[in-house]
Amino acid sequence: MKEVLYKVTFLPSQRTVTAKRGEILLDVLRRESQPVSAVCGGRGNCGKCKALVADGSEAFPPTLTEARLLTRDEIAAGYRLSCQFKVMTDVRVKTEDLALNSAVSKPPLPKASIREISPQIRLEEFSLCRPDIDDQASDYSRLMSALVTERPGIDRLNLLRRLPHVIRELDYRGRAVMYGSEVIDLLPFSDESDIFGIAIDIGTTTLAVYLADLKSGEIVAVRSASNPQSAYGQDVISRIDYTMKRDKGVDELRAAVLNTMNKLIDDLCKESAVSKERIYDTSIVGNTTMIHILLGISPGRIASSPFIPAFTGGKVFESRELDLEVSIPNSKIYIMPGISAYVGSDITAGILSSGFAEDYGNVLLVDIGTNGEMALRSGERIFACSTAAGPAFEGGNISQGTIARPGAVDHVWLNGKDIGFSTVNGLKASGICGSGLIDAIAVMIDAGVVSESGRIKGEHFELEGTAGRVRINRQDIREVQLAKAAIRAGVSILMDRAGIETRNIDRILLAGAFGNYIDPENALRIGMLPNVPVERVSPVGNAAGLGAVLAVLDSGIRERAESLSSEIHYVELSGRKDFNEIFVENLALREG
Amino acid sequence: MKEVLYKVTFLPSQRTVTAKRGEILLDVLRRESQPVSAVCGGRGNCGKCKALVADGSEAFPPTLTEARLLTRDEIAAGYRLSCQFKVMTDVRVKTEDLALNSAVSKPPLPKASIREISPQIRLEEFSLCRPDIDDQASDYSRLMSALVTERPGIDRLNLLRRLPHVIRELDYRGRAVMYGSEVIDLLPFSDESDIFGIAIDIGTTTLAVYLADLKSGEIVAVRSASNPQSAYGQDVISRIDYTMKRDKGVDELRAAVLNTMNKLIDDLCKESAVSKERIYDTSIVGNTTMIHILLGISPGRIASSPFIPAFTGGKVFESRELDLEVSIPNSKIYIMPGISAYVGSDITAGILSSGFAEDYGNVLLVDIGTNGEMALRSGERIFACSTAAGPAFEGGNISQGTIARPGAVDHVWLNGKDIGFSTVNGLKASGICGSGLIDAIAVMIDAGVVSESGRIKGEHFELEGTAGRVRINRQDIREVQLAKAAIRAGVSILMDRAGIETRNIDRILLAGAFGNYIDPENALRIGMLPNVPVERVSPVGNAAGLGAVLAVLDSGIRERAESLSSEIHYVELSGRKDFNEIFVENLALREG
Repeated sequence: MKEVLYKVTFLPSQRTVTAKRGEILLDVLRRESQPVSAVCGGRGNCGKCKALVADGSEAFPPTLTEARLLTRDEIAAGYRLSCQFKVMTDVRVKTEDLALNSAVSKPPLPKASIREISPQIRLEEFSLCRPDIDDQASDYSRLMSALVTERPGIDRLNLLRRLPHVIRELDYRGRAVMYGSEVIDLLPFSDESDIFGIAIDIGTTTLAVYLADLKSGEIVAVRSASNPQSAYGQDVISRIDYTMKRDKGVDELRAAVLNTMNKLIDDLCKESAVSKERIYDTSIVGNTTMIHILLGISPGRIASSPFIPAFTGGKVFESRELDLEVSIPNSKIYIMPGISAYVGSDITAGILSSGFAEDYGNVLLVDIGTNGEMALRSGERIFACSTAAGPAFEGGNISQGTIARPGAVDHVWLNGKDIGFSTVNGLKASGICGSGLIDAIAVMIDAGVVSESGRIKGEHFELEGTAGRVRINRQDIREVQLAKAAIRAGVSILMDRAGIETRNIDRILLAGAFGNYIDPENALRIGMLPNVPVERVSPVGNAAGLGAVLAVLDSGIRERAESLSSEIHYVELSGRKDFNEIFVENLALREG
Repeated sequence: MKEVLYKVTFLPSQRTVTAKRGEILLDVLRRESQPVSAVCGGRGNCGKCKALVADGSEAFPPTLTEARLLTRDEIAAGYRLSCQFKVMTDVRVKTEDLALNSAVSKPPLPKASIREISPQIRLEEFSLCRPDIDDQASDYSRLMSALVTERPGIDRLNLLRRLPHVIRELDYRGRAVMYGSEVIDLLPFSDESDIFGIAIDIGTTTLAVYLADLKSGEIVAVRSASNPQSAYGQDVISRIDYTMKRDKGVDELRAAVLNTMNKLIDDLCKESAVSKERIYDTSIVGNTTMIHILLGISPGRIASSPFIPAFTGGKVFESRELDLEVSIPNSKIYIMPGISAYVGSDITAGILSSGFAEDYGNVLLVDIGTNGEMALRSGERIFACSTAAGPAFEGGNISQGTIARPGAVDHVWLNGKDIGFSTVNGLKASGICGSGLIDAIAVMIDAGVVSESGRIKGEHFELEGTAGRVRINRQDIREVQLAKAAIRAGVSILMDRAGIETRNIDRILLAGAFGNYIDPENALRIGMLPNVPVERVSPVGNAAGLGAVLAVLDSGIRERAESLSSEIHYVELSGRKDFNEIFVENLALREG
């Protein structure tokens, strides 16, 4: 039987691709890297993979799942769930543009963390004696004996092949680009241009790419984008699941994230008028699953007990092994070491860049995402754990939940008896993100609308203002309780292991974009964090990304990362018999 | 205008290829890797690229060059020079099969040179604790902490990707294949099969490939073949010349030698029933030009003063960088260090395997080929030089000269008044090779046919016997005089530098296939070597090849090679004003 193909046209780009008759729209969107969020991995549970089918929706009637997860108005307007909708005729489709992909504000480098600019990449000037009949040393040994670096060498044949031509073209003077003791490129002596490094933080939800000047130590530009793997599942478990169900699953997810990384690097270079040929070093941090997928290593065993990763990093690869498009053939990629299957190198990076290790007293670092990862330092000892907070704070499983994109309610406050709220970029309210939820619940408690046990008066609570309205229902509050109890229970267990009490905590560092947005007072109010005086709580921004930047600017950071990753005591919560009890104790929405 | 193509059919294989109208036959033969020897590089000087054009020779009449270099009988029979003949119709062509490509006799390893079998490649057994919830170490760190090698690691992503699957398939026990501290493969615990190394000696004329058992230290098999680059020129200068005239010249020559190397490795493995997957290490020696071309590095500057090579080696590359077909993805290729543009790693290897460095007293090592390379040790000091002997001893520029292939006159003797001779494999005499020439000239002197100054009675001297006849003419004798004077002058200059006289020389080692064949007495008789008692002269076989074998069997040899190459005093003969004088003094065919 001949295969029937239909046209799928994406709006507003008008790009047209083909799909097989009966193909699930979500698969087409994934294949074509269209922005779509499939929180539940495409199982028809979350309703987040909504797309507007402008023409052709009538050819495949709504399923029961769509009837349940979409409103009648939405269906009437042509909205469909892409995980349900099958292509049965030519269609025109518009998905929501999730891509942040904008120039994120350029964070300053925490000066405390970087002792000096001493990148792994160094430029070394050389000036060679010209060969003559009394000095017949080979080009290679002539160059190597002119360098002060100890035991220098060219390791790869591609540069050795160019060597005779290049040193004569440079007229025997130039600058050697050194990666440790390896010469990876040769530049003209007169070339005073800057050289750059790339630092990448691969979050489950967001990718951030930094361009750093290796001479001045400054961050030149930053870009971020949604992790396109969201089309395959919101959290790491659903993505691991996908890699295990499909033959080429790891490759699909790997290609998705690589495409976006390469695009961000392209954009950064264009925006900053930096040639890719000036990028000599790259460092990458991320949770252990993201790193496995990026490297093309099956993350399968991370998902089930006893949660064994293939590796946790602390390795240098060649760019070409990863297919990362930085154009220096011999440039390297540093993968920072993580600690375990669920405490990744993003936490190592966060510890290194946030001042966690240098701060006095007992310090708690919390990075809240789908997994809440946390580290507690008490004296010389550091304990770390990860707890499954679920996607509530990223908008998952929340009726009107969303990530912190334009239009998301991000802050809520009580003004006398009135409730006020703001949205990201001041746009019309289109949902509520994590920081808004925590605020809203704290406000609802203060207003007496919600009890400490999470009971709500009526079916739901409605935020209403000039920017529109957003509802929070009973189930949403339950989701927040589950999430915050998971985090709080993790903290409790770390405190128990370290033998310290709440009053002994000198400082709480909130890492990640979410940590930056939330109101510490309200986080304390709902009992998400141990009840310390609010001034002891401070956000540390994208500590993971900054840690990655430090790793290209200061080779010493790599050694510290290595020793950190071996010194940290990982606490496996699923091995604690008392976890559930502590978890239940922390469900109440009260300080403690 | 449409390009006209003709068919060229090779005999006896009947393989048919196409050639453009007017294309030079030699270019077709080169492109298709057909055996052909173009001593002069295709300039119409040597007459060695003879081919039988069985059909179609009439379409392009013989050139003046062909009329000069071929006999009338040859032309009548259809023999043509492939550097002259243009394809102007479909042709059927037969070239002489130069390929030795036979199992060469397996040389024993010189036991003195190898202190112990300690290859760069080692197998290390491991037995891992099974992971559980109380031991969540990653697969990677689990394996590394089980190895006793210091700071072990997997460097390449391809193996890291396989790691989780492999260690479970092996049920947590196995053998790690270590290259130094790098794990390059993982084998089952029960796998007791042998592992192998390949050693390659790339001679200008002949390639030799050895298969060595890395456990027992034995040479399992040897194969050799003519260097297919002979189709581009007999000596290194004419090949360098070719690489400089053609855009892709280096690539062409590189492909030629790689094809043959890969074929020899294939043959060796088949013959010995060894899987290519068991080959974990390769070492390569050769003169500096051969190594440049193999690595794809332009050898251009080797050909003209001040003779600067791009590098002289002592490097490890990955197999894939070289396109050598050994199938372990992470296996390495060791290139032994040489000394200068004209004293290559074949000499380093010869020094290491011949006992040169261990012998008592003053030792001279001579490797006679197109270049005569030699090293003289006096106490702790070693001097080395290279002298352009020309191709006479390999049959070049000799009217009936040939390499030592079947049918070549290889030994000549005086039996009372009769002259006797033998041929390689006892076949009908088809020419005379180097060892035969030296014998013949010594015999001619003894017989009073040739004077010490090289004057011959009559036009030529004819060897005649049951195996046929071979002529040696005036010009041939002159060529031998030039060659031997070049070698003897080189030796004189080394002796001068070392401050020793002939009577102080305790031992002369003759390296190379040629050194194995020549009669030391006759070499002394014609004054090619300093006049020591004949018992002090001994052939050391293919010392270069054996040195390459040692480098896969004993990692200590690599360190010795490294220090040797930096300690040897290279003497540049073209920098010696007295060279010509010494050279002329040594032209006479007498002991001295």
